[in-house]
Amino acid sequence: MQIGWIGCGVMGASMAGHLLEAGHGVRVHTRTRAKAATLVERGAVWADSPREAAESADVAVSIVGYPEDVEMVHLGETGTLSADHPPRILIDMTTSEPDLAVRLHDAAAARGISFLDAPVSGGDVGARGGTLSIMIGGEATAVATAQPIFDILGGTVIHQGGPGAGQRTKIVNQVLVAASMMGAVEAVLFATRAGLDPRRVLDSVTTGAAGSWTLSNLVPRMLDGDFEPGFFIDHFVKDLGIAIREARRLGLDLPGLALAESFYREARDEGLGAKGTQALLLLIEARQPRSGE
Amino acid sequence: MQIGWIGCGVMGASMAGHLLEAGHGVRVHTRTRAKAATLVERGAVWADSPREAAESADVAVSIVGYPEDVEMVHLGETGTLSADHPPRILIDMTTSEPDLAVRLHDAAAARGISFLDAPVSGGDVGARGGTLSIMIGGEATAVATAQPIFDILGGTVIHQGGPGAGQRTKIVNQVLVAASMMGAVEAVLFATRAGLDPRRVLDSVTTGAAGSWTLSNLVPRMLDGDFEPGFFIDHFVKDLGIAIREARRLGLDLPGLALAESFYREARDEGLGAKGTQALLLLIEARQPRSGE
Repeated sequence: MQIGWIGCGVMGASMAGHLLEAGHGVRVHTRTRAKAATLVERGAVWADSPREAAESADVAVSIVGYPEDVEMVHLGETGTLSADHPPRILIDMTTSEPDLAVRLHDAAAARGISFLDAPVSGGDVGARGGTLSIMIGGEATAVATAQPIFDILGGTVIHQGGPGAGQRTKIVNQVLVAASMMGAVEAVLFATRAGLDPRRVLDSVTTGAAGSWTLSNLVPRMLDGDFEPGFFIDHFVKDLGIAIREARRLGLDLPGLALAESFYREARDEGLGAKGTQALLLLIEARQPRSGE
Repeated sequence: MQIGWIGCGVMGASMAGHLLEAGHGVRVHTRTRAKAATLVERGAVWADSPREAAESADVAVSIVGYPEDVEMVHLGETGTLSADHPPRILIDMTTSEPDLAVRLHDAAAARGISFLDAPVSGGDVGARGGTLSIMIGGEATAVATAQPIFDILGGTVIHQGGPGAGQRTKIVNQVLVAASMMGAVEAVLFATRAGLDPRRVLDSVTTGAAGSWTLSNLVPRMLDGDFEPGFFIDHFVKDLGIAIREARRLGLDLPGLALAESFYREARDEGLGAKGTQALLLLIEARQPRSGE
């Protein structure tokens, strides 16, 4: 297939690479051209705009930062939907607003095009390994057509329902991740302060009822003092903000989510936005009444 | 080996059963005699007190409800330490206070006996399957002697450090479990209220960055409306109380733990104490500003 690819962040670059490897034609656009350099060396063609990436492609895929970027990429002046021969299917894999997904679905439909919201989970590890969980909202026929692409990028590919259902499922995912990260941070603080060997503790707690992806994948990074982004705090603050607004819209009060969201916002405000989500440890550590023994 | 076994709750009964199967002699005592009936049918010998269970045994193991029960079982008038020929090793597998573990260690040492704190994680599933994670505090020589017993009961057996280190590790475990459960409950509420199919959502989120033991094992029970205890809310309130007190003693403020503990206490006060920890869903659901659409 000929694929227009928009977004070469931590996730996007790995994902587009898998499509190249699988023999698909990729025309790539991203805000910072340098980030596309490796893909271009490997055979991707540079495009000066989302429109140019999407022009005459079979499918255009976006995975960018914020809902406003998603809107610009597809509805903007040089967006995918302004192409002369737009793709039959647009896929947005950014974690974004369910309502925006519905709006993009409607705007695409007005041009006879299918739109799928298909955010992912699994972090940089999953993007590199092609083992992402892909949560899809939109029409079943479009999902079936795009299946070969999803199968290359993901290990778990599930059509969750109509437009927006992918984004709503991703919110569920982030509610879980936020809780898991709060637990992991507090567990690390306790283990360290209690004089235990945190790595040995980890060996005990990962295999039982406390086990989680966060524990197995991000706590080791915390213990190594590695706070580099698999997933940016800036982006997680965005995700949790979406989750909070959507919960409110549904009349739900989710106190665990609210607590985690407020800490992540604080972490961003303290300048940790470009660190990985595991850097929440640094904030909560600094907030302790007595830091250090 | 000849083993004195004290405690036939959800966990204890399965665990003692594995020792019988493996050919060990088991003398069993528990507060409610009827709960030992199945074990006695399978070859265990009934004992009228912890002392009687421990008399002339190689090892005595307790897994009971609360720290005060642990204290009574070992230090009480008819406790294990009052035996004429006490075992060389006492093992407490109850989740209990680290300080009590240290006190029992000292009391046992005064009689030339080793004491190990060895709480477990993995729930009823792990107890039945012999796959528990066992977190051990105490002297290395005693751990080595008791290893054959631990190997029958657990899949992950780790000596975490000196007296109390097993209990402190278990606190880390429960901090993680509490966070995980808060996340799971809020995720289920969101998924349901957002009109998604929660089982299909589960298929998407268990394999990615949101994955956890809680999600795979307890959320399906929530969705089936099964709130029966794998692990009692009453006991979890005890565990979280221990965690809160120990964190405070270490000068730690853990807001996620505090939030979960307050909800679990509320759940117990609302009469959910004999339900499983997954019944937290019922409380948080009932607390919603609008319940149901």
